[in-house]
This record gives sequence, structure tokens and C-alpha cells, in this order.
Amino acid sequence: MSELRKDLITREWVIMSPERARRPSDFHHERAAQAVVTKNHSICPFCPGNESMTPPEIIAYRKKGDKANSSGWWVRVMPNRFPALMVEGKLNRSESAIYDRMDGIGAHEVIVETPDHGTPLSRLPEAQMKEILWAYRERYTDLCKDSRFKYILIFKNHGKVAGASIEHSHSQLIATPMIPQQVWIKIKGIEQYYEYRDNCAYCDIVRVESDGKERTVAENESFIAIEPYASRHPFETWIIPKRHSHSFIDMKDQEIDELVATLKMVLLKLELCINDPPYNYTIINAPINSGVIGQFHWHLEIIPRLTIAAGFELGTGIYINPVPPEESAKYLRNIKTIV
Amino acid sequence: MSELRKDLITREWVIMSPERARRPSDFHHERAAQAVVTKNHSICPFCPGNESMTPPEIIAYRKKGDKANSSGWWVRVMPNRFPALMVEGKLNRSESAIYDRMDGIGAHEVIVETPDHGTPLSRLPEAQMKEILWAYRERYTDLCKDSRFKYILIFKNHGKVAGASIEHSHSQLIATPMIPQQVWIKIKGIEQYYEYRDNCAYCDIVRVESDGKERTVAENESFIAIEPYASRHPFETWIIPKRHSHSFIDMKDQEIDELVATLKMVLLKLELCINDPPYNYTIINAPINSGVIGQFHWHLEIIPRLTIAAGFELGTGIYINPVPPEESAKYLRNIKTIV
Repeated sequence: MSELRKDLITREWVIMSPERARRPSDFHHERAAQAVVTKNHSICPFCPGNESMTPPEIIAYRKKGDKANSSGWWVRVMPNRFPALMVEGKLNRSESAIYDRMDGIGAHEVIVETPDHGTPLSRLPEAQMKEILWAYRERYTDLCKDSRFKYILIFKNHGKVAGASIEHSHSQLIATPMIPQQVWIKIKGIEQYYEYRDNCAYCDIVRVESDGKERTVAENESFIAIEPYASRHPFETWIIPKRHSHSFIDMKDQEIDELVATLKMVLLKLELCINDPPYNYTIINAPINSGVIGQFHWHLEIIPRLTIAAGFELGTGIYINPVPPEESAKYLRNIKTIV
Repeated sequence: MSELRKDLITREWVIMSPERARRPSDFHHERAAQAVVTKNHSICPFCPGNESMTPPEIIAYRKKGDKANSSGWWVRVMPNRFPALMVEGKLNRSESAIYDRMDGIGAHEVIVETPDHGTPLSRLPEAQMKEILWAYRERYTDLCKDSRFKYILIFKNHGKVAGASIEHSHSQLIATPMIPQQVWIKIKGIEQYYEYRDNCAYCDIVRVESDGKERTVAENESFIAIEPYASRHPFETWIIPKRHSHSFIDMKDQEIDELVATLKMVLLKLELCINDPPYNYTIINAPINSGVIGQFHWHLEIIPRLTIAAGFELGTGIYINPVPPEESAKYLRNIKTIV
């Protein structure tokens, strides 16, 4: 069973996950293996035919009448085999001397985005990407019903450097029993901005960037993709809905279509511009089951992993970015994609 | 000139450093080069004889009478050749629409720890490590006099994965014109803890860990080295002074000796236990020139870089640590070092 422990100074929670525990010697292999990419389809647990290699599926999109955990699906969701947090159990809290801990309760799921081992998300048809978003929404909505959970993050790791341990294109979802500190910081920032300017910070960003254009990568009726003014990472890209809404599950049909078009275009531009960079994306929604929504404005953040956070970043939280967003936006705008 | 930009939601500052600017194509090379380690001494700018390859030195410890910027030194400090922040200029602030920016004023220095290209810090004699600490202290004390600076971080990157671009053992120092958000979070955490328990959080950690021992790696009269209760990273190690003090420059002679002994022992143990891991260390002191000292308790944090922060960590700030600190402390305690 994993455990949540609180740093009594920064008040950050950490997940101790000894299910994934390793001996010191394991770390040598891991580093040596970082450059290796598994190309062997026969042992990929996410490929059709290998369904028995994963925990039983939670949902899968497949033809009506097909058996669960057989092949024939086009999107498949299952529990992570090495979950950081576990669904079963009560959320027991306790203290150990001055320290706070709680049981590692939560959910950790994997969304396999396609049966096709070799196709990255950026190269999937828009119709398929839409199915993936439906799966995100279905799982998100279901997990929201569990009152133990206060936050759900949907995220994707693409490439070894971005933390992907399996090449076959997939996303993940982790539900946590508390609001993560980084989300609190955003909630407070949004609140402070609202009190000062009487408007939502993200709505203001949408307005300013849509007017100015110099940091805009792509734009349609419902979404704008920008390189944020204070980008922490080179080619960091945010996709922000123009309509103020605290959660992606509120999207209307047309908005889903436009999000898919924007996401595909941005991923393709990044792929072509910087040669298939490793990247993470996160869908940042408001907390759930906690009454803390405020003026939250959901958005999607894409972080290409091109630089290394070193001692200065770790010690201060201040990032050094060698590529101003105005420049990266220009590079990305100039990349032609045939969608 | 680099620029500081503020994220209007998280209120984090980012350093835009176009002096280090790169085109998209540069990032391909960089990734390919990540595994390559420069072994060619003749072109190392930190080796004796190559002093002209760096900006002129700020201080160097060398025999009296020897010429500046010649060889013969044992510790040498110079401005970083590609500084993230620049010493020259006024701290001009301005607004661009809803965004805040200021000129990239600060200091960025390099401390070359030894003339010997091939010897890592862990293998230097204690007498030499003491000289390095003197150099840290001398530069820190001098930069404190500049009222534009509100924070100074001394840090070290060891190994490519930890962000070291030059193999020759060195540390760095960056002075910033504001208090970094991560330091604010600690200041507030310490304050909140103090209000609640009427004691310094770090003093309490020292007491609890010194009593309990299960997370202790090493201990002497003045310092304790522990794996923190809520370690974010496997084998994360903190060295905390037992005497409450807000800055490392207040150390007495005996304390410096004991810090050197503790640091050397911990670095050697990490090197032997996990096969010379890439690591960062940071010396976390209270802010300067800002009246914000409160109950700050300085300390040194060592972060081995063994895992990859992926989408979940980026989106929530919650780390997943596969090695509980009680286990890593046991491994490290059992490593015998002959010092």
C-alpha cells in the first residue's frame, strides 16, 4: 500500500510508493536504459491480443457484443499495473511524531489511445482523438462521484525523457484525496487577480493574446493556443478555451471538435519544428468534491522536455528559458501542417 | 539582456535568457549529446592554463604575489560566461498589457572547486572542501552588500542529467532581485509551524530525527544528515545544522569542519551506494536585504537525479517516490566510507 506524506514546511504531499520500490542497484540499469526504446510489439501490454497482460479493463470502446478484455477495441482504459494510489480502502490519516501521513488512496488509470502500436497521438485521425477525449470524460465523470477524491489530473507522457515507460501511445489519470499544492497556488492566483482586476486571469490572457497575436500559435472560434508570456520551458504551449468554464467535461460538441483540431495541430507543429520532442501534457481542471471552484478556468498545458531543471530551478522554482515565447510562437506559426 | 517575467496566475518569475537563445534545430543536437561527457582536458575552460577562456576572475585562492588569471590557484570564482542574470544596470520594471516584467538584473558566478579536472567534489581532501566553503562565504558576503539582491542561491550540478554542462567540478551562485516563490513557501511554512507549535520546524526535525534514527544517515555535534520524512526523490538527503541560524555565513570554525566532514561522507555514500549518481545540491539560506528572516533555519539539500518528473509531477507538484526514506537511510548508513 502506498502512503501520502506531508512535508511539514512546504506543506507538499509526496506519494511513497514502495510497490514500485527498488534497490539502489536498480537505478544503474534504469539510467543505462534511458535511451533504449522498446520496439518489440509482441511484448507490448497495450497491443491488441495482449489484453491479459494488463489488469482487467474498466471501460473499452469496442463493437457492441464483443467480449471485454479481448481485442477489437479502439480505446481501452484499465487500472495502472503499478498504481501510485489505490482505489480500495479507507482514507486513514495518522501522525508520526511531528509528521502527517495518510493511506495512499486514489485512482491511477491508463488510457490506451489506439490499438496501433506505432502511431503517436499527433498522427491519429481527429475522429480517433475525439474518442480519446470521450474516454477521458467518461472516466473523469465517473471518478468525480467518489467523494474521497478532491482532484483528478489527466496527463500524457510522450517519450522516455518525459517519463513514458511504454512506447505505445497512452495517457494516464490520477485521482488524489487532496487538492495538490500547485493547484492551490493557481486557485489563489486566480482569486487574487480577480479581486484586483474584476476579471478572470485566463479570460484576460485569451483577450490580450488574441488581440496581440505575437504569442499565438493557433486560434479558432472556441480555443486559442499560445506560448505563455512567462513560459518556463522552451516551446511551452497552453490551449485555453475562450468560454469561461471550470472543467473540460462541460465542453459542447463543437468545442470538442475544435479542441481536437487545435491539439492535433499544435502537436504536429511541435513534432515537425523540433523533431518529435519528448513532451508532457496536463489537463488542468478545478478541484472536485471540495467546494473550491471559484473563478477557475480549465486549460491544457503542453511542456516539451528540451531543457534540464538543474540546481537553481530545484532550489528556487525559477526557470531559465533560453527561447522567448514570441520566438517559439513565430517558429510554430510558420510550420505548415496538413490536417 | 535577459528579462524576468511574472506568471500572473502562479506569481512565479521566469528568467528569459535569449543570450542563451537557440533555434529549434539546436535542441536535436542537445538531446543526442546528453550522453556524451567531455573528457578532453585541453579544451576545458576550468583547467589551469585555460584561464583566458573564462571571463576575468572575481576572486581566486592562490599564492600571494601570483598574477590574477594565471594558473597556480586552488579555488577560482568568475562570472558565468552565459549569465542568466547580469550585474550591470538598473532594476527597471515595466508592464506589458496585463503582464509584469523587469530587467534581468542579478549575479551569476561559477566557483571552480579544484584545479584537478578529474576529481569530483566527493574525492577532494577535506582541507580543499573547506577552501570551497570559504569561497562560497566570501562571494555570498560580498553580494549581500548589493541592496538590489534579495536572494542568493549557491548550488551544484553534478553530471549531465543534473544539468552540468562542464565536467570539471564546480558550483554556481545566482543572486536574484526578488525572493523566489519556493523560498516564500518555506518562509510561510516555517512561520505557520512556529505559530502552531511555538518552535522552529527544522529544530523539531533535528530533534525528532536525532532521537528516532531511522532516517538518519550521519550525525556529529553540529550537523545531522537525514533522508527527509516526505522525501520527494529517492535518496534525497538534507544536511541540517543543529544550531538555529538563518544563514550559513554564521558558521563557526568547528561547524565548518563538521559540515565538510558530513558533506563529504554523504556524497561518498551516495557515490558508492548508487554508482556515482547525477545530483544537485542547494544551500538554502534566508532572503537578504528584505527584512524577511523570521525563524528561517538554513540547510543544504542534496537531490540525486534518479527518477524523471513526468506529467503528474508537472501538473500537481506531487512527487512519486519509489524508495521510502527509511530504506534509503538504511542503505546509506550501511555504506562504509574511509574518510
